[in-house]
Amino acid sequence: MVERLDAEARAALARELPGWSPVEGRDAIARSFRFADFGEAWGFMARVALLAEKQDHHPEWFNVWNRVDITLTTHDAGGLSARDVALAKAIDRLLG
Amino acid sequence: MVERLDAEARAALARELPGWSPVEGRDAIARSFRFADFGEAWGFMARVALLAEKQDHHPEWFNVWNRVDITLTTHDAGGLSARDVALAKAIDRLLG
Repeated sequence: MVERLDAEARAALARELPGWSPVEGRDAIARSFRFADFGEAWGFMARVALLAEKQDHHPEWFNVWNRVDITLTTHDAGGLSARDVALAKAIDRLLG
Repeated sequence: MVERLDAEARAALARELPGWSPVEGRDAIARSFRFADFGEAWGFMARVALLAEKQDHHPEWFNVWNRVDITLTTHDAGGLSARDVALAKAIDRLLG
């Protein structure tokens, strides 16, 4: 069983993941990414897909052309867990 | 300039693309696909990405785990065009 983030971990989110925002009405975080074109967006998605498989934790995501919107939450926990923080940090590292 | 589908082409949609449904409030069609797991869903998405680049026409799509929701419309035409029909047919062919 995966545990939801405690108050201390939640308080640290804004500092640790400044690019990510809380999702209204859900215990989730989201970030929108823009690229030069579909090829670059897809390349980014392919790297995120590998991270997701490696971490055995998968995003909810939407793509249209050069835009990729990623939402992270942990269905098994019913909300945000350390898995989301780990995946968000790994995604951020892809962008250098 | 890409032209929107005429009445005849629209009337043929239900017959030609039975798996696709009109999107409420938009001139678009959508289809939801389910797979065994994320790896299979991703493999499908990779094939759709190649089709999209080849046809220079890209989907709006959403994925979570084994589910892929694809919406097709032609932004340049302000609605459905022959490009959407061609991409939808090619996507359907991927599934055999």
